[in-house]
Amino acid sequence: MISRDKHNRMANAIRFLSMDAVEKANSGHPGLPMGAADVATVLFSRYLKFDPKSPLWPDRDRFVLSAGHGSMLIYSLLYLTGYEDMGIEDIKQFRQLGSKTAGHPEYGHASGIETTTGPLGQGIANAVGMAIAERKLEEEFGSDLQSHFTYVLCGDGCLMEGISHEAIALAGHLKLNKLVLFWDDNNITIDGVVGLSDSTDQIARFKAVHWNTIAIDGHDPDAIAAAIEQAQKSDRPTFIACKTTIGFGAPNKAGTHKVHGSPLGAEEIAATRKALNWEAEAFVIPDDVLSDWRAAGERSKDAHKAWEGRLAATEAGKKAEFTRRFAGDLPGNFDAAMDAYKKKLADAPPAVATRKASEDALEVINGILPETIGGSADLTPSNNTKTSQMKSITPTDFSGRYMHWGIREHGMAAAMNGIALHGGLIPYGGGFMIFSDYCRPSIRLAALMGIRVIHVLTHDSIGVGEDGPTHQPVEHMSALRAIPNLLLFRPADAVETAECWQLALEEKHRPSALALTRQNLAPARKTYEAKNLCATGAYELVPADNAKVSIFASGSEVELALKAAETLAQKGVATRVVSVPCFELFYDQSEDYQKKIIGTASVKIAVEAAVRQSWDHIIGSDGAFVGMHSFGASGPAKDLYKHFNITAEAIVAAAEAKLA
Amino acid sequence: MISRDKHNRMANAIRFLSMDAVEKANSGHPGLPMGAADVATVLFSRYLKFDPKSPLWPDRDRFVLSAGHGSMLIYSLLYLTGYEDMGIEDIKQFRQLGSKTAGHPEYGHASGIETTTGPLGQGIANAVGMAIAERKLEEEFGSDLQSHFTYVLCGDGCLMEGISHEAIALAGHLKLNKLVLFWDDNNITIDGVVGLSDSTDQIARFKAVHWNTIAIDGHDPDAIAAAIEQAQKSDRPTFIACKTTIGFGAPNKAGTHKVHGSPLGAEEIAATRKALNWEAEAFVIPDDVLSDWRAAGERSKDAHKAWEGRLAATEAGKKAEFTRRFAGDLPGNFDAAMDAYKKKLADAPPAVATRKASEDALEVINGILPETIGGSADLTPSNNTKTSQMKSITPTDFSGRYMHWGIREHGMAAAMNGIALHGGLIPYGGGFMIFSDYCRPSIRLAALMGIRVIHVLTHDSIGVGEDGPTHQPVEHMSALRAIPNLLLFRPADAVETAECWQLALEEKHRPSALALTRQNLAPARKTYEAKNLCATGAYELVPADNAKVSIFASGSEVELALKAAETLAQKGVATRVVSVPCFELFYDQSEDYQKKIIGTASVKIAVEAAVRQSWDHIIGSDGAFVGMHSFGASGPAKDLYKHFNITAEAIVAAAEAKLA
Repeated sequence: MISRDKHNRMANAIRFLSMDAVEKANSGHPGLPMGAADVATVLFSRYLKFDPKSPLWPDRDRFVLSAGHGSMLIYSLLYLTGYEDMGIEDIKQFRQLGSKTAGHPEYGHASGIETTTGPLGQGIANAVGMAIAERKLEEEFGSDLQSHFTYVLCGDGCLMEGISHEAIALAGHLKLNKLVLFWDDNNITIDGVVGLSDSTDQIARFKAVHWNTIAIDGHDPDAIAAAIEQAQKSDRPTFIACKTTIGFGAPNKAGTHKVHGSPLGAEEIAATRKALNWEAEAFVIPDDVLSDWRAAGERSKDAHKAWEGRLAATEAGKKAEFTRRFAGDLPGNFDAAMDAYKKKLADAPPAVATRKASEDALEVINGILPETIGGSADLTPSNNTKTSQMKSITPTDFSGRYMHWGIREHGMAAAMNGIALHGGLIPYGGGFMIFSDYCRPSIRLAALMGIRVIHVLTHDSIGVGEDGPTHQPVEHMSALRAIPNLLLFRPADAVETAECWQLALEEKHRPSALALTRQNLAPARKTYEAKNLCATGAYELVPADNAKVSIFASGSEVELALKAAETLAQKGVATRVVSVPCFELFYDQSEDYQKKIIGTASVKIAVEAAVRQSWDHIIGSDGAFVGMHSFGASGPAKDLYKHFNITAEAIVAAAEAKLA
Repeated sequence: MISRDKHNRMANAIRFLSMDAVEKANSGHPGLPMGAADVATVLFSRYLKFDPKSPLWPDRDRFVLSAGHGSMLIYSLLYLTGYEDMGIEDIKQFRQLGSKTAGHPEYGHASGIETTTGPLGQGIANAVGMAIAERKLEEEFGSDLQSHFTYVLCGDGCLMEGISHEAIALAGHLKLNKLVLFWDDNNITIDGVVGLSDSTDQIARFKAVHWNTIAIDGHDPDAIAAAIEQAQKSDRPTFIACKTTIGFGAPNKAGTHKVHGSPLGAEEIAATRKALNWEAEAFVIPDDVLSDWRAAGERSKDAHKAWEGRLAATEAGKKAEFTRRFAGDLPGNFDAAMDAYKKKLADAPPAVATRKASEDALEVINGILPETIGGSADLTPSNNTKTSQMKSITPTDFSGRYMHWGIREHGMAAAMNGIALHGGLIPYGGGFMIFSDYCRPSIRLAALMGIRVIHVLTHDSIGVGEDGPTHQPVEHMSALRAIPNLLLFRPADAVETAECWQLALEEKHRPSALALTRQNLAPARKTYEAKNLCATGAYELVPADNAKVSIFASGSEVELALKAAETLAQKGVATRVVSVPCFELFYDQSEDYQKKIIGTASVKIAVEAAVRQSWDHIIGSDGAFVGMHSFGASGPAKDLYKHFNITAEAIVAAAEAKLA
């Protein structure tokens, strides 16, 4: 039992580390760590199952700081509980270039940071994904190996963001009872009091989506403890509304927005030291407090040891599988299966939409990879994401492998991030490509974190047809290619689709998105090649000696490029065709390779039913572009291609105009 | 009074037009129009205040079909009630290229379409914006001129999308009592039943955000009427949950997802004709039914006439102002005021952040333009969007002109669209540029619709500093430039900021976004120029005869370009500098102008603290680029510029390397 006095001193350690680090950096957010210190202290010193000496223990409880601006809360906790890679020097380097202690918690910078947060609301949805992963893996491997809680701390901003609705509605629906959400209810936002813009009854709101709800004084350790214990027993996810004072302890600024995002200033810090009876200098933690915190960090050592014992006693095959899954390695027979599938395709190259080709590839993949968890944002029959192996996950049965995410692209993408971060599973999820805009913040975070999530973006151009411009991606190809570290694949046929899927799955440290057609395409690759030609991002599909014209195309427009090249060749114009399934991988290649692929033909033409922007680097500003120059329109797809002049004839004409 | 039988026949007219049009197009969504026909019939035949002969009557009730896939509902209503530009031939052309009857309702295609919908949830937030505009204009011009309801019809998808939470929480907070939301509660989504992914108690959810709530049988005209009447008297916005059967009337497919997004097929349509006792052929409306509907379309004629009378009797100045505001024209003294401001700037060019320069420009603008309604997504002190003229709007007082949108970028952007669509006001709203991702779907729709909304996007690069990569835009500049019809401005100093604001306000048919710095910038323009140099999108800031080097830059990097040019000139290298505040406007210019600005210097360098993608068109693939090649990092801004090698020295080095 931790006495009230001991608790207070432990919580104050967080407060002073936070305000002193912000003061030293002259930048940052002291208000949240000071206000939420009591909640965090009770959780970390009495309940959270974690081992700072083994930060990746697969069965640890997950803790997510959704209100990422309060990053000093988590850095303080990591230092205090004894994570070896978080020393006091790191705390002093808060917000400095190259430090582990970035302005917002950055996944990968230090152990114990479970996800990158800052863009508000994301952490809640990440945590929903983690809780889904836990439940799924417990179902698969048993509670001996997987049985942990996911805790998440959020602020008012997280709850105002729309993504929070998507995440909590889903969590309530799925009855994710090991998910616990603390709300740092401090009534303050940047503009002032919450009442300036919101008057939501959050308890009623969470009840409406079937959560267990508790409201407490967030500075009362007994109440916090009782709430956590109640939450742990709940058959539904639990929302704990913790009434707190932002900047708790600062005598003149606490409870106001002045303490939210600015240093307190030397004077106020001195006054806080007096008010909280804290005599230690900045960055010095009194021995008794540090030793109490280090003891808290050792609290789960035995539980961890017991878990290791259970893992060791697990049947060898299951143990190996569990270990492989958390290492993120693919099974040894994966490549062979994909190779066999490619051979099969070469036997009878199908003329199918790439969304259908993706389904066929997934049928192979999901048969070999038990770790895939598929899903769609309510477009299953359109995205073709559900294969024969995939039974739907339901609130009462997690033995399935398919998520009906609902019409919640943003929540889906952020929860997929959470699943990937949790480990043990590879999430893929479907949506219309146009709606990549709805979940762009989460796709970006996946790229920033370098995690393996795969977005299946079907209906990738005006090929959508009658649904019209609101449903036709035009700028999305370039906009997604602009995101660093994201692999956007746009395969041209069934073989390329298989190759792109293989690359996406083999890439452990980058997210992928596959842009796929609604409409059928003629096969571009008709002979078997052992090599994954898509791996270099761009490759020559049709070579030509002394080419006068190079045509670069992706996806559905490769078919047009091939036809145009044929016509040009018949007219005696030596023409190459380069398929460009992935810009990011192409730019990974050596300069020599890139030069070779771009080639020396005097006429360069890019063809894509999308805006030109990303192609300029390949064709130059004097290259010709056959593609979109505006939004699309509603009409049958064939009419649209003609109307917007994206045809083999247009390519030929563009080539001839340039040659003239 | 409309008898039950008459009502049924009127509703069935919608059903048959919808199913027959979808059948003819062999594409579309019959389920919603058939299910919601009763609700729409009661609303349009008995309550909605509208005049098909004068579709832009400023005091009409607004009707938004948020579930835009059910577009045949609105097309049917427009035809039946007698909008002159919606004939039966238009209905027959449903979903054909060039028709008014696009797959989803497209603003501007036909009168009576108040907004473009389709991306789910947007319409709810548009309607919130319309209701805000009505309340604000009623406050300003009195209820004689402005006093109308805003009705919106949504489906399950709209309510699952996160944006719905942002919109309804704000509407409840603001007590928008003239807003009425019908929920077409048909329990069906594309994947199957709603229960696959959601179990939200929607009534409880809306109560939690302080709405008036009513649940009814959506096929009972009396219940629908009673609910509308109750809603009209409410002091809060009203949510009417209408239990309906999707595809109502189709004997074999109603109530299933088969009827959601596919034609019914000839057989089922025949069966429906029999079941609903409808003998007319496809696209033929029996005379009695058409005449009842046309009478419904004339219902508000007198109200409209009375309103015209009140407008005519209005004091001349107020009347002129009301008329000007709804015409969207700026006041005559606007240009002179901006010109005077530019002169003042030239007297003492300030070295300020462009976010501060924006505030200063707004101080002038808001003094001249009473129609601006400002706001921020809870970043008022960071976005500098609130000027001295702007009192906050509160639930009980709409005399202010400033919206605290809360931490709701998506809801804000979509509601701003609604304000602009409503007319009478010009909305601008602030956010961090990074969070343009959170509201990208609404920015895109503004561009697609061609409406005047202005986004103030501050903290536009690694200049953000310590907040780190989650808060530093890198790909956003290119990603926003990729959206057709959107003016992304990135001004370099106070003068350019004023010019860009002027352009954004003068542009009636395109939305704008201003990318603004957090950090101070040296002035780039120190002398007064009457001409708005930013109007051509790019212009020569430093000319040079026989230039060897052209440096192109925007925003904060213009300062670096100027320094580098000075150094190069000192070294004897003739160097031009081109400021590029707006790509979209630059590409609007003649080819000659573009060529002249790009120039003939052998070395072209672009400088922007963002990814290269959008610059390739100007500098070509062999140009040099000084900018970002990855995500940013956390640290003081100056350290980051150095670390990422975005400095005057780096530009000089790049030039010399290319010249060597």
